Amino acid sequence: MAGARGEGYHMGPEDFRAWGYKVVDWIAKYMREVEKYPVLSQVEPGQIRKALPQEPPERGESFERILEDVEKVILPGVTHWQSPRFFAFFPANTSGPSILGELLSAGLGVQGMMWATSPACTELETHVLDWVAQMLGLPETFLSKGKGGGVIQDSASSAVLCALLAARERVTGGKSNLRGCDGRLVAYASREAHSSVEKAVGIAGIGRENLRAIDVDDTFAMIPEKLHRAIEKDREAGKVPFFVCATVGTTSSNAIDPLPEIGEICREENLWLHVDGAMSGTAAICPEFRFIHRGLEMADSYCFNPHKWMFTNFDCDCMFVADRRSLIEALSILPEYLRNKATESGSVIDYRDWQIPLGRRFRALKLWFVIRHYGVEGLRFHVRRHVELAQMFSRWVEEDPLFELPVRPPLNLVCFRHVGGDEANQMILDSVNRRGRIYISHTRLKDRLTLRLCVGQTMTEERHVREAWEEIQEVAAQWSRL
Amino acid sequence: MAGARGEGYHMGPEDFRAWGYKVVDWIAKYMREVEKYPVLSQVEPGQIRKALPQEPPERGESFERILEDVEKVILPGVTHWQSPRFFAFFPANTSGPSILGELLSAGLGVQGMMWATSPACTELETHVLDWVAQMLGLPETFLSKGKGGGVIQDSASSAVLCALLAARERVTGGKSNLRGCDGRLVAYASREAHSSVEKAVGIAGIGRENLRAIDVDDTFAMIPEKLHRAIEKDREAGKVPFFVCATVGTTSSNAIDPLPEIGEICREENLWLHVDGAMSGTAAICPEFRFIHRGLEMADSYCFNPHKWMFTNFDCDCMFVADRRSLIEALSILPEYLRNKATESGSVIDYRDWQIPLGRRFRALKLWFVIRHYGVEGLRFHVRRHVELAQMFSRWVEEDPLFELPVRPPLNLVCFRHVGGDEANQMILDSVNRRGRIYISHTRLKDRLTLRLCVGQTMTEERHVREAWEEIQEVAAQWSRL
Repeated sequence: MAGARGEGYHMGPEDFRAWGYKVVDWIAKYMREVEKYPVLSQVEPGQIRKALPQEPPERGESFERILEDVEKVILPGVTHWQSPRFFAFFPANTSGPSILGELLSAGLGVQGMMWATSPACTELETHVLDWVAQMLGLPETFLSKGKGGGVIQDSASSAVLCALLAARERVTGGKSNLRGCDGRLVAYASREAHSSVEKAVGIAGIGRENLRAIDVDDTFAMIPEKLHRAIEKDREAGKVPFFVCATVGTTSSNAIDPLPEIGEICREENLWLHVDGAMSGTAAICPEFRFIHRGLEMADSYCFNPHKWMFTNFDCDCMFVADRRSLIEALSILPEYLRNKATESGSVIDYRDWQIPLGRRFRALKLWFVIRHYGVEGLRFHVRRHVELAQMFSRWVEEDPLFELPVRPPLNLVCFRHVGGDEANQMILDSVNRRGRIYISHTRLKDRLTLRLCVGQTMTEERHVREAWEEIQEVAAQWSRL
Repeated sequence: MAGARGEGYHMGPEDFRAWGYKVVDWIAKYMREVEKYPVLSQVEPGQIRKALPQEPPERGESFERILEDVEKVILPGVTHWQSPRFFAFFPANTSGPSILGELLSAGLGVQGMMWATSPACTELETHVLDWVAQMLGLPETFLSKGKGGGVIQDSASSAVLCALLAARERVTGGKSNLRGCDGRLVAYASREAHSSVEKAVGIAGIGRENLRAIDVDDTFAMIPEKLHRAIEKDREAGKVPFFVCATVGTTSSNAIDPLPEIGEICREENLWLHVDGAMSGTAAICPEFRFIHRGLEMADSYCFNPHKWMFTNFDCDCMFVADRRSLIEALSILPEYLRNKATESGSVIDYRDWQIPLGRRFRALKLWFVIRHYGVEGLRFHVRRHVELAQMFSRWVEEDPLFELPVRPPLNLVCFRHVGGDEANQMILDSVNRRGRIYISHTRLKDRLTLRLCVGQTMTEERHVREAWEEIQEVAAQWSRL
């Protein structure tokens, strides 16, 4: 119980240790039991708030009571992203070493906005991102020893915004940053690109109408000729094409845009090429999946999220640029109160100039812990296993006459549907998620409601995927009987 | 040691528990010993990287070795923001309950992008931000029961960007988001406003040249008449004034812009008023310091950072808006794969539409833990204490003929300087920070180098402030002897 003592109301080191053990115990228990919970929270809107007091407590409360409320009030409102039965969206996985890295980062409480404000925070990040580039077999241009380098962003959304800003500054020679946009710039992405591209184009003052949604082929990948034609058309209309976002592993169906052809077009036309590998980039840790990155050497920037499928807590998006100068020129500002000798020597990286916010946590710790705990070998093992399980699931779908595969899954995301049409699929989706044993999500492909099962949660094993298929078949059988 | 077992390379719950205890112990020890370390890291550029292997480990390593390297390789490169002798910049403080909230958030590993993806994450956030508004005595307009509401952003930089985007959309009727900017919009902030305002204006395609730096008075606060005249001049020139950022507690010298007058101007001229209370907002938890928020009822948006001075780990910026619709209209996008019944019912908040990224952590947990552990009473006690200590320090400065106060400190940040001019102050700054007992930073006020001492680190007590003054006097005495 907190109380006014000599030193005030703080939780001292000994109390912290005691309650820290309790929270660690709680998480260990959660890890063991998480698969028993209904994956999708079943609460109604407003239900959690109703259980909370209207007013903040005037007096401090015991940590015991706080933890009780976590169990009683919060837990029913949690959708269990860490359940091995979570197959919706993309995964957002964690792991023991990552959680401990996050804990240590919170304990150190360091601000890494500049090299000088905690050199280890900056240097470990640059170094570990070089490791990551090696692990994934990324082009040499992205390593920090040359003109490029890596940075941890909070998300792929922020990465694409930063890439867009760097591209905007490059094409306008810094004018758009100083004088503002003029409505002439045009960006390109496939119809299947993530919504964050459109959001970024709006934020950056380019205008969402100046993002061209390029048509896709039967695998939902961008058609390079259509991109080329759109660029030509815009040039003829007096517009200024400047940016392409290609996706390796779209959110909807995991489509892989053809980087070699898109990269060639960007080179010829002098457009910035950003490649978004949010979930699927991790697959490149296995040599047999590196085909997804063919052509990446022509990209100006690239990102993927260890917080999706590399067992590292959100937020951890690894962004790489081939020429860090463009990024820094777009985002740097140096007020007097942040001036320091290290920055002025030019010999250090100040990551505040590589991102939107000024402040930043010591996020490299968790990534470093994960890579060292698993080793590249361990990460490869689990990623490979997830792909195998998804492929196994897709074969079951193919073999069942009641279901079909609208597109062959390249990696760990399976799009599938019941042959009974949208109504059947909606019923299956809703029932399965309400029953709570598993959680899957949906998309629309060629305007048909399509179910998605993504295998990527840290602890998902064969039995969970088997149970998912049983669950889906059981619910589908109900539909057939209607 | 990690090894390929049946279930692979994961750290199981029992190992997690054992290593979790070790990390908790490490942090408890760090809490006890942090004040013994030199506050500012003394490493040279490149020194940390040299101690790290060039290549990522192929095989997993034991967690013991990882923790050894934290101690051996990382710690010397850490600037100790959690030292009670840290007086530089603004604080970025933590506390026991906050660290444990962050730990629990990492363990749950929840994505709070939409209500549906974890209702508790959204509802606790809305609820706790209502608590915070009550604690600080903020205007009713910011409460979620009306048209307004609160959201946790990563930083005040992101908050001002979001506010700017909402204002941009409001003034253009949504056109700037769709069609892009046209270089006519103009924003205003004082010369002393944080650099993030200029950065945001650049990012949003407004153009940094279209941010007017309004003159300040002798307390470094914005002069409302100058603002008024600048707006008139821009209107005459065919520009479109749309946004003012006022600051309560500037980074440089803690100046408080006069909100009542600025607010009136914004109302008359129909400009969006954003108020940045990054560090100082926390002071309003004490009724005697609520003067800083006089006039805030005229603001469209407001933010302050519990991660600065309310004992909550970075990142935790509380942003409030009076009309959430403007913000949502500026930032929402709804692709098919994120559609769900709760969102379509309109009865829930989807926080992805209140921020730049899509994904988000369960950050409300740590803030909830902090408020419940300390109680409003406990938070008030410590904030009040910090202000007293800063005021005590400022009296020592005033009484010493070798030093002067360029401006009276309104709260917990003292700007001061040696009467010997820039050279003397530079020497004092460099020596003090190199000696490592304390860490202070600097600014320039009326073009004179000025030292800053900010009292706000969680554990700072009277003896630390006394030692800081002794240290500064000792170093200054060397200068006098030169």
